[in-house]
Amino acid sequence: MRAIAQFEFGSADVLRVCDMPMPTLRPHDVLVRVAATSVNPADLRARRPSSARSIAREFPLVLGYDFSGSIVELGSKVAGWQVGDEVIGCPSLMRQGANAEFIAVDHRVIARKPKALTHVEAASLPLVGLTAWGALVDRANLREDQTVLIHGGAGGVGHVAAQLVQLLNARPVVTCGSSQSLAFCRDRLGLNTCLDYRAEDYADRLLESTQGRGFDVALETVGGDNMNVTMSAMAPLSQVVCIVPSAIDGLRSGAFMKSITVHYNMMTAPLEYERQPEKLGENLATLAYLVEQGQLRPVVDRVWPVSEMAVAHKALEAGGVTGKLAIDVADGWLN
Amino acid sequence: MRAIAQFEFGSADVLRVCDMPMPTLRPHDVLVRVAATSVNPADLRARRPSSARSIAREFPLVLGYDFSGSIVELGSKVAGWQVGDEVIGCPSLMRQGANAEFIAVDHRVIARKPKALTHVEAASLPLVGLTAWGALVDRANLREDQTVLIHGGAGGVGHVAAQLVQLLNARPVVTCGSSQSLAFCRDRLGLNTCLDYRAEDYADRLLESTQGRGFDVALETVGGDNMNVTMSAMAPLSQVVCIVPSAIDGLRSGAFMKSITVHYNMMTAPLEYERQPEKLGENLATLAYLVEQGQLRPVVDRVWPVSEMAVAHKALEAGGVTGKLAIDVADGWLN
Repeated sequence: MRAIAQFEFGSADVLRVCDMPMPTLRPHDVLVRVAATSVNPADLRARRPSSARSIAREFPLVLGYDFSGSIVELGSKVAGWQVGDEVIGCPSLMRQGANAEFIAVDHRVIARKPKALTHVEAASLPLVGLTAWGALVDRANLREDQTVLIHGGAGGVGHVAAQLVQLLNARPVVTCGSSQSLAFCRDRLGLNTCLDYRAEDYADRLLESTQGRGFDVALETVGGDNMNVTMSAMAPLSQVVCIVPSAIDGLRSGAFMKSITVHYNMMTAPLEYERQPEKLGENLATLAYLVEQGQLRPVVDRVWPVSEMAVAHKALEAGGVTGKLAIDVADGWLN
Repeated sequence: MRAIAQFEFGSADVLRVCDMPMPTLRPHDVLVRVAATSVNPADLRARRPSSARSIAREFPLVLGYDFSGSIVELGSKVAGWQVGDEVIGCPSLMRQGANAEFIAVDHRVIARKPKALTHVEAASLPLVGLTAWGALVDRANLREDQTVLIHGGAGGVGHVAAQLVQLLNARPVVTCGSSQSLAFCRDRLGLNTCLDYRAEDYADRLLESTQGRGFDVALETVGGDNMNVTMSAMAPLSQVVCIVPSAIDGLRSGAFMKSITVHYNMMTAPLEYERQPEKLGENLATLAYLVEQGQLRPVVDRVWPVSEMAVAHKALEAGGVTGKLAIDVADGWLN
C-alpha cells in the first residue's frame, strides 16, 4: 500500500510517499481503507526531533491520528462491525497512523461516521473532539451554568470545545490572537465573549468576563507563561485541564492559595488505549451523535491531497488556522 | 485576657505572653474558653518573615489553629449550641488564633469534643484531621482498595491520614526519615508498609510496594524535588493532593504522560471559611465520630504549658516529631 512515511525526525520535508506492507490485523482490529485524515499538533510533535520524546518511535514512521473511511476486513475478535461500514477514529500514537491507504485500528475505539459529514469533515472530528470531551466532561466534570475559559478558541481543539461548552449549557469565554480568529469565533461559532490576548488590558478583561468571580473550568492549550494568566483568572476550587506538558508554580501562580485542581490530560496517550478503549469509542459515538443532531460541527479550514502532506504540516506550523486542516486520502495518491 | 502574641515576624523568640482585649463576637460566632491548642506548620509559616505571604497580617498577631475548650457565650445568629458545650475546632487563618484564654469562632466550623479524648488530645485533631479528610475524601475521592502514598507518615497530617486510609478500606504506604518514625508507624499505627526515604533503593521500593502498578492517590506533604519522586511512583490517571505550594514540571515529572490530576489543597484557606463553613463543621463532626467509635486517634508526642509556646515551636522546627505537639492552655498561664 502507499503511505506518507518518514525515515528520520525532522522538518516537514522528511515526509515522503512510499510503499509499505499492508498492516497486520490484531484480533481486536479492523482494517480500514482511509478516505480522509487531518493534521494535528500531535503530528508535528511526533515528526520533529525531540529530547523529551516519551513514546519510542521506529522508522519508517507513519503519522496521522484521525481518519474517516470504510472497513475492509475484520479481526478475529471483532463484533458489531461489518465490512463496508463507514467509520471514524483517532488511532493510537503507539502504532502506525492514518497517513496511508489502509490502517489497522482497534474496533473498540472507532465510531460510525456521521452521515451529515463528508469524509474530509468527518476526519476532522475524532482527535480534537475526543480531546475536548475528555478534558471538559471526563476530567473537569463540567456542569451547567459554569464559566469556561478556552484558549485558542479558533484552533482545532478550541473550536470544538467552545461548541461543546455551549451545548452543555455552560458559558464559554474564548481567547484568540488575530482579528481573523476573533471573527471566526464570533461569526462562525456564534460566541459572544471572544478576547484578544494581544490587548494590553487582556488579563483584566479576562477576569471581568466572569464578573470578577473567576472561571470554574479552563482548557489550557498554550502552556508556559500563559499558565500564570490562566491561574490568575480562575475561581477558588476550580478545574484547569492542561493538554500541554506545562510546568506550574504552585505558589506564584496562585494555584495553591485557590486550591485549584490541575488535570494533566495527554490525549492519544497510550494509557487510554490500553486501559479503556471502550470509553474512547463511547465518547466518539457521543460526538458523532451530536453532529447528527446538528449540535456540533467540525470546521474545515483547508483541504490538501495526501501527496501534499508536507504543505499541510507547514500550514499548521505557520499558525493562523481557523478550525482544522484536512487531507483527502481517497484521491490524493494520483497526484 | 491573656494571649501569646507577636509584634513582628521572626523566630520563636518573638512570641510573648501579653494582655489582649476580649474577642468581639460576630453574629455567627461563639466565644470559647480555650483549654488546649496544638502547634502546626501553619503557625511557623505565619510567624516567620516571608516574601510570599499570601494572607495580610496585623500585629499583635495571635497564632494557634486548633483548640479544644468550652463555649462561654453565643453570638446572635448561633443555633444548636449551648453555653458549657465542650467543642473543638480549627479556626480561620484570617482571624486571631487559639493561643489565648478565649477565641471567637464561627459556630458552623466547630464540632463536639469527643468524650474519649482529653482536651489536649482533642486539640490535636482538628487541623490535621480536616486536612487529611479534605485531601483524601473531598479532593481525591478515595475509594476502597486503592493504594495511597503518604509522605511523612509519622507527622501530624501523615499519622491521621494513614489511619483514615485504613478505615476507608484502602491501603496506605507511608514514608519516614528516621528509625524512630518508622517504629512509630509500625508499632503505634499498625502500618505494614513503611519505607525509609533515606534508603538508596527508595524509589524502586516505592514502586515495588504497589506491585509495579503505581499509586492511585498520593498525599504530597514535602514538595520540592520530592514531587518528582511522587510522580514517578503514580499510576496513570491517579490523583496527587499537594498540601504544600510546590511547583510541578508537567513533562519531566511524568505528570503529563500519565494524565495525572494534581489537587492543590491549602487547608485553613480563607476560601473554605467563606464558601463552605458548614462543610468544615460536618467533616470535623465525622472525624469526632470516628474517634468516639475507636477508629481514629490523634497521637500526642509532647505537651507544654502555654507559657512555653516558643519551646513547642522550636521542637516542631527541629523535626523528628511523631504525631502532634500539644499545648495545655488551661493551666499554663500560671507558670
